[in-house]
Amino acid sequence: MDLIHEMTEKGVTERSFTLDRRQEPVPGLLWTPEGATGPRPLVLIGHGGTQHKRVPNILSLARRLVRHEGHAVVAIDLPHHGDRIPAEERDLPREERRRRLGRRVFGGEARSTTDQAVADWKAVLDAAQGLPEVGTGPVGYWGVSMGTHFGVPLVAAEPRIHAAVLGLFGWAEGPRLAGFDTLARSITVPLLFLVQWDDEVAAREHAMRLFDLFGSADKCLHANPGRHVEIPMRERDAAEEFFARHLGQAVAAAA
Amino acid sequence: MDLIHEMTEKGVTERSFTLDRRQEPVPGLLWTPEGATGPRPLVLIGHGGTQHKRVPNILSLARRLVRHEGHAVVAIDLPHHGDRIPAEERDLPREERRRRLGRRVFGGEARSTTDQAVADWKAVLDAAQGLPEVGTGPVGYWGVSMGTHFGVPLVAAEPRIHAAVLGLFGWAEGPRLAGFDTLARSITVPLLFLVQWDDEVAAREHAMRLFDLFGSADKCLHANPGRHVEIPMRERDAAEEFFARHLGQAVAAAA
Repeated sequence: MDLIHEMTEKGVTERSFTLDRRQEPVPGLLWTPEGATGPRPLVLIGHGGTQHKRVPNILSLARRLVRHEGHAVVAIDLPHHGDRIPAEERDLPREERRRRLGRRVFGGEARSTTDQAVADWKAVLDAAQGLPEVGTGPVGYWGVSMGTHFGVPLVAAEPRIHAAVLGLFGWAEGPRLAGFDTLARSITVPLLFLVQWDDEVAAREHAMRLFDLFGSADKCLHANPGRHVEIPMRERDAAEEFFARHLGQAVAAAA
Repeated sequence: MDLIHEMTEKGVTERSFTLDRRQEPVPGLLWTPEGATGPRPLVLIGHGGTQHKRVPNILSLARRLVRHEGHAVVAIDLPHHGDRIPAEERDLPREERRRRLGRRVFGGEARSTTDQAVADWKAVLDAAQGLPEVGTGPVGYWGVSMGTHFGVPLVAAEPRIHAAVLGLFGWAEGPRLAGFDTLARSITVPLLFLVQWDDEVAAREHAMRLFDLFGSADKCLHANPGRHVEIPMRERDAAEEFFARHLGQAVAAAA
């Protein structure tokens, strides 16, 4: 994990990093309390489709988890997103970008892209836990929409993840997500699952079906009116409360 | 409102009262902070079918709203419940009691029983707001299951109610609850709606349909695994947070 740039604002230190990986480097961000030493809970945040590691909702959630709970937070650019968009594709029209993403993430290449995303997350988790100011404390995952498309396989595969916020994503019979239902059933950690009642991307009925599949005894669905990207701000409070409850607060305070 | 008995425990004063009404007196309980003076938010708690005004979950919610938020809380015995069960019916076998309640509350007598419950609540609200330590501050309503069966008509009819926690109840086409859907549509105050995912009394699909009907722009559904009476304790935290957010805290502190 090569730490590239560091800045501190209102008690939160943000460091950009690159993790060298066989196929391509993974660019990421790490947020910790200013002057943090010692282990603390770590939350991984997976961005949505067409987004990247530093969109406003990630930045806001990361900063409050650091400030209020003393957590460490990591976000990365997932495959085909952010700094991982090939140079020759950066200026493509928005619709063409979306079409290619659809194929790579949810279409014919879904399996290899998902495997890549899960492997990237595991490698980033290894590296982050190697830092003394993060350590091997409890780990949480937050990711909705594409963050759940990648998050379900990740949480199912990664025993270090103790609790997850998922949502804006559903399950329906079909070849597209073969095995996704089995992975969902195998998840038993506490879950907070977000549904947008008027979601135009993830059908409400499919989201309900996915929630039903999870093997977790402690799972809670929060549904709010509004479209896909209109999660109310109060669900950010709920996510923070959820992580504080399941991961605890930082053991060691700032230096 | 005749205040009959008063006791104070850990900063919470509980007073039992009887409100004289044309048909029959309404027995109730009022909880306020010890030594409270001046107006404060008031929460009405409607018990479930076969329950009464002082079942453990009501007592617990009332005490925490008083202790943590400085609210006043009122619960009453709804028609055909608690002290309003005729003397000759008190020793009936449980199943026979349930059969009669079913007819009176949800069956052929549903209309008159609901009208009675709504009228009782309005009269109790009038009386409670006449007390200087309650006053005419914002009002909330909490009631699930039968508490929603009566609560939807009450919240629809009572402009003094600013926010409500409802749930464990659904809506389906049929003559039983004629007009219930119209009342639900007319409600526009903030709502927290509780669903038990494995509810054996209120079908999940019907609960979802009722949530869908509400006219409120600010409504949130919380669904948790478990049967009808297995709402997790954490939803009590959520209800308290909901009322604190929408009703505020007591303006005047204890004397």
